[in-house]
Amino acid sequence: MKIAVIGAKGRMGQAMSAGVEQTDGLELVAQLDAGDEITTESLNGAEVAIEFTRPDSTLKNTLAVIGAGVHCVVGTTGWTDEGLDQVRELLETKPGVGAIIAPNYALSAVLAMSFAKKAAAYFESAEVIELHHPNKVDAPSGTALTTAKGIAQARREAGLGPMPDATETDPGGARGANIDGVHVHAVRLRGLTAHEEIVFGNPGEQFTIRTDSFDRESFFPGVLLAVREVSGRPGLTYGLDQLMDI
Amino acid sequence: MKIAVIGAKGRMGQAMSAGVEQTDGLELVAQLDAGDEITTESLNGAEVAIEFTRPDSTLKNTLAVIGAGVHCVVGTTGWTDEGLDQVRELLETKPGVGAIIAPNYALSAVLAMSFAKKAAAYFESAEVIELHHPNKVDAPSGTALTTAKGIAQARREAGLGPMPDATETDPGGARGANIDGVHVHAVRLRGLTAHEEIVFGNPGEQFTIRTDSFDRESFFPGVLLAVREVSGRPGLTYGLDQLMDI
Amino acid sequence: MKIAVIGAKGRMGQAMSAGVEQTDGLELVAQLDAGDEITTESLNGAEVAIEFTRPDSTLKNTLAVIGAGVHCVVGTTGWTDEGLDQVRELLETKPGVGAIIAPNYALSAVLAMSFAKKAAAYFESAEVIELHHPNKVDAPSGTALTTAKGIAQARREAGLGPMPDATETDPGGARGANIDGVHVHAVRLRGLTAHEEIVFGNPGEQFTIRTDSFDRESFFPGVLLAVREVSGRPGLTYGLDQLMDI
Amino acid sequence: MKIAVIGAKGRMGQAMSAGVEQTDGLELVAQLDAGDEITTESLNGAEVAIEFTRPDSTLKNTLAVIGAGVHCVVGTTGWTDEGLDQVRELLETKPGVGAIIAPNYALSAVLAMSFAKKAAAYFESAEVIELHHPNKVDAPSGTALTTAKGIAQARREAGLGPMPDATETDPGGARGANIDGVHVHAVRLRGLTAHEEIVFGNPGEQFTIRTDSFDRESFFPGVLLAVREVSGRPGLTYGLDQLMDI
Repeated sequence: MKIAVIGAKGRMGQAMSAGVEQTDGLELVAQLDAGDEITTESLNGAEVAIEFTRPDSTLKNTLAVIGAGVHCVVGTTGWTDEGLDQVRELLETKPGVGAIIAPNYALSAVLAMSFAKKAAAYFESAEVIELHHPNKVDAPSGTALTTAKGIAQARREAGLGPMPDATETDPGGARGANIDGVHVHAVRLRGLTAHEEIVFGNPGEQFTIRTDSFDRESFFPGVLLAVREVSGRPGLTYGLDQLMDI
Repeated sequence: MKIAVIGAKGRMGQAMSAGVEQTDGLELVAQLDAGDEITTESLNGAEVAIEFTRPDSTLKNTLAVIGAGVHCVVGTTGWTDEGLDQVRELLETKPGVGAIIAPNYALSAVLAMSFAKKAAAYFESAEVIELHHPNKVDAPSGTALTTAKGIAQARREAGLGPMPDATETDPGGARGANIDGVHVHAVRLRGLTAHEEIVFGNPGEQFTIRTDSFDRESFFPGVLLAVREVSGRPGLTYGLDQLMDI
Repeated sequence: MKIAVIGAKGRMGQAMSAGVEQTDGLELVAQLDAGDEITTESLNGAEVAIEFTRPDSTLKNTLAVIGAGVHCVVGTTGWTDEGLDQVRELLETKPGVGAIIAPNYALSAVLAMSFAKKAAAYFESAEVIELHHPNKVDAPSGTALTTAKGIAQARREAGLGPMPDATETDPGGARGANIDGVHVHAVRLRGLTAHEEIVFGNPGEQFTIRTDSFDRESFFPGVLLAVREVSGRPGLTYGLDQLMDI
Repeated sequence: MKIAVIGAKGRMGQAMSAGVEQTDGLELVAQLDAGDEITTESLNGAEVAIEFTRPDSTLKNTLAVIGAGVHCVVGTTGWTDEGLDQVRELLETKPGVGAIIAPNYALSAVLAMSFAKKAAAYFESAEVIELHHPNKVDAPSGTALTTAKGIAQARREAGLGPMPDATETDPGGARGANIDGVHVHAVRLRGLTAHEEIVFGNPGEQFTIRTDSFDRESFFPGVLLAVREVSGRPGLTYGLDQLMDI
């Protein structure tokens, strides 16, 4: 399968290009970056384009790829509902062309979020601990926020009330952030990359889901899954979990 | 809801009786044990019977409960296909009566096995580490065996080949047991009860599912789930995962 | 060795009595509780008394044991400097008699605190995560506070500056409590007892010390160590780490 | 402080050069590799040389550095007692010159081994789980072997007998390798680098020490410690733990 990488000079784009070159059955036929026009010619016969650029250019790039009749796998974040609608509309005019846009291509993170939502209905207690490198400017991580909200929603749908918590005194805020009733803790530690641990508790038992991302190459298996699936899924698919049998 | 406990003097039965008494909406109306006959009278108006006895008496008990027109939740292990068939046949003559038989009522263990099978298709590597108290006579645990076989089957169905493993020298057998291609490790440690950790790996990422059972009261939430579901599920249901939205 | 247990009807006292009875070489000769006078007669020939009572009675009990010429191992918390001084003074009049008073007899917790202080000088980052049952009223735990302060002091003595932390936005307080510059996180989860994880980070590496207390019987090995050492240590010894070769 | 790196083109040497350049107070004045002669001139005024080469050249390199009157920090493995003796003899003729040779510069691994030996005397049970990338050819790892032997020796010195283990049936060898009575388990997982978990157990409690090495840059803090200490330690120092207050 012939592949183009868009955003090829960026760190993710470089990792994707390397991944494509090391994968049997994939051929890297185009590497485009800012300043390169995205056309049938510049895509050079690619059947699928992998797009990892920036929030302010991903919509334009994606529309250009689809306009050229090429399937598109998009890893750039920051999509708005309006942007997704524009992609859907364009895809309606291009029968057979597919686009997969996902906020996270790390398989373990996608599995963790999906499993956490499923497990949440069955436990009295649930908390989220995320651990990242100390250069991160925001706490908690977006993944932890999404995880906590998913747990909270699953608990509501299951008719569960508030979690047990007898805390009366916590002068320093050790109990962390309360996201829709789910406590979230953020650790910052030199040497780490991106990690999340979700803990559930019932009388006499604990259940834990953990995901460790050590390196940005961890996104490639998820991108590869999308690359292999996209031609069989015309229209827009949002979220990697849609491709997974979970 | 009125509940009978069968095997009420055993350790599990005692835990179940205590659980029933502590749960709003449940009423313990009968506690039977070896020597007590199971009849409409001795069941004393129970709507559901919880059966935790021994492999050599569970079939007879279960048939007696169903024969009395009472729903049955069975936690005793050691069921044969023939035994299950006998239960199915009797249930056909008792429309509206349900029986739930499950090899494991620990919710976290049931979730772990289910999620491990789902995750297995998406990772290059997977291994199982089980940790138990040092009085356990067999290694690995039955749960770890089942987990490993489930992972192996999921990998086959996904078309995955053998896991990467360059080991050439391992004089002492540190790589553990190889169960259908999945390495299983058994730790025995004073202070532990029953724990299982399932680790998955891809380039740049790790995914971990862990279950810790600290106490036999950890079976009660699963039994409670079955008690609440059994009246709505006529016939035989095998396995707690059948009741769960996972 | 002949042993008396003081506070024998309390939960810790019962666990201690059970531990003594199950240990070869120890003989339980007296079990005293509130209302029993502590005298040479009531101690019934004991060589060592184990005292687990309440903060408001431990000083009086300890002085009475020492006054009777019996070695004393004290597990009750809440000691003041004045109380310790009274014990020291009385011991000076009883040459050969020893007393060991310690705030924590869980060996793993004592080791964790000691090792954490030693390790702290060698890492850029360190944080503490404590996890407890949800009935706990205060956060963070006293052990976590002591651990964090120990780490902070060791860092100061090693001339280390603040830990790296680029956090700019943390609207919900996910970064937890800041104890002398060490972030402390408190998790409350049904099913847990008392657990602490101390994480250290340097470029490319993480170091973790974890202690899990599942049951109050976890105090017995530490008490046993003290019982065996106390007769060889006249005067007052404060803290279990003083008995350990760490 | 002026630093030379010997073996500068190797992967470790490159990491060391990068580390030196990024550290305030260090200046990289020479980068030598195979083919370069090690002389006062080629060392170019270096006060300390960092040597990461190969087992068959490290002795010659180290003697040459010392011969030039320069302190030496050696990270190459494979040293024999005879080699160490030759270094000691040469150092006797060079008063004030120091050499530090260590089999492991990862601070967390050095701490883990030291703490494991100290903790071993206080627990009934201890096992070692090492986890590595799947390209590793030997199992268990050298670090795990050393750790297990250290634990076994500490137990003997403390007069502890065999660990509790009721295992009767283990057809596949799930209990792993038995190293002097300490069970060692080796996990191989894509995505991992080098990790070790040491678990200790007593009634009611578990104690865990874990070290994760994600990247070879994890050796630099240990090398830096040696570089700063070597000028104050004339003669040969073997093992990083000798420099640490642990």
